[in-house]
Amino acid sequence: MDQNLIDFTAQIVDDCLPGKSIDCVILGYEDQQLKILLLKWKHEDVWCLPGGFIRKDEDMNQAAQRILEMRTGLKSVFLNQFYTFGSEKRSKLNEEVQLTRMRHIIREIHGENENFVEWIKQRFITTGYFALVDIKKTAPHPDILSEKCEWKSLSSIPKLMMDHGGIIQKALEHLRIQLNYLPIGISLLPQKFTMQDLQKLYEAFLKKPLERSNFQRKMLKLGIFIRHEKQLTGAANKAPYLYSFDIEKYDSLLKQGIGFNF
Amino acid sequence: MDQNLIDFTAQIVDDCLPGKSIDCVILGYEDQQLKILLLKWKHEDVWCLPGGFIRKDEDMNQAAQRILEMRTGLKSVFLNQFYTFGSEKRSKLNEEVQLTRMRHIIREIHGENENFVEWIKQRFITTGYFALVDIKKTAPHPDILSEKCEWKSLSSIPKLMMDHGGIIQKALEHLRIQLNYLPIGISLLPQKFTMQDLQKLYEAFLKKPLERSNFQRKMLKLGIFIRHEKQLTGAANKAPYLYSFDIEKYDSLLKQGIGFNF
Repeated sequence: MDQNLIDFTAQIVDDCLPGKSIDCVILGYEDQQLKILLLKWKHEDVWCLPGGFIRKDEDMNQAAQRILEMRTGLKSVFLNQFYTFGSEKRSKLNEEVQLTRMRHIIREIHGENENFVEWIKQRFITTGYFALVDIKKTAPHPDILSEKCEWKSLSSIPKLMMDHGGIIQKALEHLRIQLNYLPIGISLLPQKFTMQDLQKLYEAFLKKPLERSNFQRKMLKLGIFIRHEKQLTGAANKAPYLYSFDIEKYDSLLKQGIGFNF
Repeated sequence: MDQNLIDFTAQIVDDCLPGKSIDCVILGYEDQQLKILLLKWKHEDVWCLPGGFIRKDEDMNQAAQRILEMRTGLKSVFLNQFYTFGSEKRSKLNEEVQLTRMRHIIREIHGENENFVEWIKQRFITTGYFALVDIKKTAPHPDILSEKCEWKSLSSIPKLMMDHGGIIQKALEHLRIQLNYLPIGISLLPQKFTMQDLQKLYEAFLKKPLERSNFQRKMLKLGIFIRHEKQLTGAANKAPYLYSFDIEKYDSLLKQGIGFNF
């Protein structure tokens, strides 16, 4: 009998809004790969997005921030709400999934909280948020139902719960559209980077190779980079230029967008 | 005692998901003005967005389509989900508003459905959808709680319920960003239009005058217009060119966007 779990499940039923959840697609970039923060369930070989519920006295956006902070240790990271998933099939998926997950929880709580079993089996509508974060600054921390919280490469995602794979795809779709009219990179790249580093990041999102000179021309035209002088050594002269983002101009482009700019 | 209202309220409590609603920002363009479809409550000088609830056996997106169709008569119009509003303050607003609205409903249902009163007073999270439609093709129809369903100019919106003003602002914000990277106009302009008509539409969204030659150059560069030959009469020669959208190219730009196009 797990008293922590009994308390946790009781608190959720009392304190949280029924039938509404939040799922966070938290992305980082490391070793030229996009990575995503995932949780592995206890007792099962299934992974899921960091998520949670909305307290009755809390804004939905605050709940998303709280979840991000609990899982990553990061404060005040910009979370983009990208879509709310309200398919009716989710409830069926939920029932199956929760029954599996439930088996273990029920065993642990020993019938101490039947309300929770009913509560978690209902139809849930979930709102997706995404964040781009610096992996090195995070301290991943599993929740009470999970045994691991780890960065996984987007190209080799393990088996996921319910529609979490679809939620990730929708977040990426949203991001790929944004790439066309908003700058990205500030939280994902090191402070100084080469144009090739930036191109590799874009290629990772777009999942296709880009033409080098065209990419550099378009990027540099945006006027959001500071170019750093090369050190005067033989080796450095052969090295490509290093750039960093001009934060002010980056932010202004972030507000204004690339496209038409009427 | 209004039996229709008793049936309606009973059905909602039985058939719909608790605490979740949908609000639709339905926009049209007429007399060089952006217009929005609004409902006026019975007995009160307050207006609201066309909205409703999600049936337990229905996808959220289907619910939005159903609401759009019931209020406008339009089928298969593209609805864009733009944001989910989950502020905790909404519940406070809801309580006040619903108490006013409730007074009349309660009187009509004569204590026949206390469940509904509790149901509607709870905290609601609402998902906003917007649609751009051809006003001439719509047949506005009020719901059971309203006495009017009318097109109102966006520049003179009447007193609105709860946070509906904020929901409209958020939809417009979303649309103004879209204007920068996606074409609009197909459902809002007549089949043939002048570049000035198109400019006036963009100015209505952006709420600022645009420079004529710059606007035309940027627009025509998109390659999504068919230019129609002028009729060979004196009057027509002085008239500006008429254009229509090249649907195929318009749709392809809609998928691809303006911006970078990697």
